[in-house]
Amino acid sequence: MPSQEAITQTVNRYLALVATGTADEILPLYAADATIEDPIGSDLRRGHDAIREFYAGFQDVKKETELAELRVAGSEAAFLWHLRLDAGDSRTQISPISLMTFDEDAKITSMRAFWSPSDVQVL
Amino acid sequence: MPSQEAITQTVNRYLALVATGTADEILPLYAADATIEDPIGSDLRRGHDAIREFYAGFQDVKKETELAELRVAGSEAAFLWHLRLDAGDSRTQISPISLMTFDEDAKITSMRAFWSPSDVQVL
Repeated sequence: MPSQEAITQTVNRYLALVATGTADEILPLYAADATIEDPIGSDLRRGHDAIREFYAGFQDVKKETELAELRVAGSEAAFLWHLRLDAGDSRTQISPISLMTFDEDAKITSMRAFWSPSDVQVL
Repeated sequence: MPSQEAITQTVNRYLALVATGTADEILPLYAADATIEDPIGSDLRRGHDAIREFYAGFQDVKKETELAELRVAGSEAAFLWHLRLDAGDSRTQISPISLMTFDEDAKITSMRAFWSPSDVQVL
């Protein structure tokens, strides 16, 4: 089982890279056959190609992330975080609750994000 | 799939009953073969007998609950909440992130709670 510290590091690195990194920088945080369900209810994306495509879709948007609450248990994490999107003339915030599972090396094996369009706040 | 409103009602009713209800009052919120993993990493409890035993263990403790953040997606919910325990001479707070899945009738089919002893705050 990965250590709580290693999981915490992966989560923090993930949020930093979601804010300012590229899809190719995020990718090594994920295990090869990892899955993404973001938001919950959307089609599952599996594997690095699908994951790269997901993050590439918004890597050029100006944004900030902030970790609000993190709980690590076993080889899993649940965290509430804020994603602020700056489109120049409009600033919006989404605050998902995300779930991740991790492998022995604290690489993400699955990521699921609870949020819906009705959660988007205009700042 | 249960409606978001029905799921929200179940979550709010659950937190109200965790605060002031008995195990027998909480039980009808759960489907017959529901499972509990609280905290994550502990043995899974399955079915009404095991669930009653879980809640009976602390039904007589004076406590308050507060819903902080709720996300509902599909037939699932994730929520951050506060549990304040009042043992007379000591007051403590735990703030779990809990996950629930629901059946068609918005009864809870599984509950998993992310928290650990290190998250307990003395108030």
